[in-house]
Amino acid sequence: MKTVRSSKHRLHYPTGEIHGGQLVCPFDCPERWDNIIDRLTAQGYTEFVNPDELDIELVKQVHAPDLVEFLANAWDEWQELGMNGEAIPTSFPARRMRDRQIPKHIEGKLAYYCLSIETAITSGSWIAAKSAAACAVTAQNIVADDGVAFSLCRPPGHHAASDMYGAYCFLNNAAIAVQAFRNENASRVALLDIDFHHGNGSQDIFYQRDDVLYLSLHGHPHHTFPYFLGYADETGSGLGEGFNCNYPMPPGTDFETWYSALQHACNRIREYSPDALVVSHGVDTYKDDPMSFFVINSEDYIRCGELVGKLNLPTLFVMEGGYAIAEIGINTVNVLDGFISTSG
Amino acid sequence: MKTVRSSKHRLHYPTGEIHGGQLVCPFDCPERWDNIIDRLTAQGYTEFVNPDELDIELVKQVHAPDLVEFLANAWDEWQELGMNGEAIPTSFPARRMRDRQIPKHIEGKLAYYCLSIETAITSGSWIAAKSAAACAVTAQNIVADDGVAFSLCRPPGHHAASDMYGAYCFLNNAAIAVQAFRNENASRVALLDIDFHHGNGSQDIFYQRDDVLYLSLHGHPHHTFPYFLGYADETGSGLGEGFNCNYPMPPGTDFETWYSALQHACNRIREYSPDALVVSHGVDTYKDDPMSFFVINSEDYIRCGELVGKLNLPTLFVMEGGYAIAEIGINTVNVLDGFISTSG
Repeated sequence: MKTVRSSKHRLHYPTGEIHGGQLVCPFDCPERWDNIIDRLTAQGYTEFVNPDELDIELVKQVHAPDLVEFLANAWDEWQELGMNGEAIPTSFPARRMRDRQIPKHIEGKLAYYCLSIETAITSGSWIAAKSAAACAVTAQNIVADDGVAFSLCRPPGHHAASDMYGAYCFLNNAAIAVQAFRNENASRVALLDIDFHHGNGSQDIFYQRDDVLYLSLHGHPHHTFPYFLGYADETGSGLGEGFNCNYPMPPGTDFETWYSALQHACNRIREYSPDALVVSHGVDTYKDDPMSFFVINSEDYIRCGELVGKLNLPTLFVMEGGYAIAEIGINTVNVLDGFISTSG
Repeated sequence: MKTVRSSKHRLHYPTGEIHGGQLVCPFDCPERWDNIIDRLTAQGYTEFVNPDELDIELVKQVHAPDLVEFLANAWDEWQELGMNGEAIPTSFPARRMRDRQIPKHIEGKLAYYCLSIETAITSGSWIAAKSAAACAVTAQNIVADDGVAFSLCRPPGHHAASDMYGAYCFLNNAAIAVQAFRNENASRVALLDIDFHHGNGSQDIFYQRDDVLYLSLHGHPHHTFPYFLGYADETGSGLGEGFNCNYPMPPGTDFETWYSALQHACNRIREYSPDALVVSHGVDTYKDDPMSFFVINSEDYIRCGELVGKLNLPTLFVMEGGYAIAEIGINTVNVLDGFISTSG
């Protein structure tokens, strides 16, 4: 299994993230990437590939062009304010406000385009974000030949919506890869999101489409981010009705319960009979992850990968979250190991 | 002119406010209050009155009861998380998310109820917020006898909406005072907001009512907070159609332009013929205010007060913003001086 990765991810590492009322060292740190690379190497996954140049027109099939333009220019506009910190919005279009007029001031633009404000934009964020999306698209290309590939994306992507960034995500790497599959010869694509958090961005992007089946296993939004999306009754709309499947699970959920949901999701994928599968691969479901309220152990991830492998589909793994730094390598690669052991 | 004030305002003073990507000393600091008290004293306004106990049922005529309950309990719930910082949300119901399900987790509740996240909730915020509202209501009572009163509120109020707090505001002191007038013998009340920022909360609370005329002179939302409300075409809805008047003005607006808008607003008030006037009194319009892009000088505030005084209405001044600390006393009291010089 080849891994596509870029060292440009290091260009995005804000000095602070708002957490618990303080600016703390960001949970999405470069060590996450390093530790996954180390574990991949130790397990013999040593075929590392550099990404090709990103096709920005492909990105604009998934994201609003004005979001793309905003992300490309936000740091320069922010710098003109002469602030000492990195770009963090403080407001947003709240209930009963108007959300269709994009303000002219950079703080207003941040407020318009951001969906979760712990995530700072820095001088290198846009380059890093493009590199992550480029990894996903390059890996998608590899799947055509190899049947599987791993895109080690950082920053992650599944919270990025068509016209909003946030929660560490700028471009929705997995969604862009899904679109790349569709642009080639896949008539139907399944996007399975096993990250601890609901992939609100991915759901948003594909909610009205029947050519992409989105399935997400995640912490119940009553109790964790994104709080206002990810309920079980969100099943898609219009053409997309029936093609969005949420499995929200409460605090204390153990692996057997989680695995049952995964089995259900895999059965849905089989019924859908897609031409390709993209896995939004996060391991913040881990029992000791600082964000998790699930009780999943490192060895459980092997069983997860095995089940996904049994789908026997061309499969692209796209890295999302996981913040238990010491265990992120073993947990991430265990899924890949399990997959390899059972896939055709 | 009597001034109602409470030293309990000091109980709300967060250690940090998110500004320019950093946690900085809050702009809404206790020195604002001290300097206004000093200037009032120097100008002979030495009748200082303590507020009566706040009638929370009156508050619930303006704010959703669940917001009131949330504010009363937020700090205790936050403390249970064991965080080191004060309560600051990081997310919110973004576009196309569901905003009617209130999460169970305190971070989700903060996300639901907060409309602008620079504003931290501290151990003393609720007591301070209640004291500010109590000042407004007590001052409203004084107007019946004296024809005028000044409520030196801190924290301010006009950004607080029916079910949201934020932008330094927890309870909408001016709106609560308006409601108190209505509960007594005023059939119509005008609420004139001269703070630099649009009073999104006040507009929100009265938007569908014809018994309250809301008028606001403010920085254009293209260029400043609240960014997504305060446009000129927001004129009220339902019964309230025609009873909401916004005067957004661009960067560089000088006093003559601002004064023309004030004249227009005062004419609207005359036509409406209210039984009482509440002034949301902010002086962050000042040329050297760190938030302002208007060019208004200290002596201009006298002319502002004179014009309001000529309305010859029972008038309650309720303090809102103003962050040029050294000049906040003179600017605030200049309005009162001008009012006294011309009012019946």
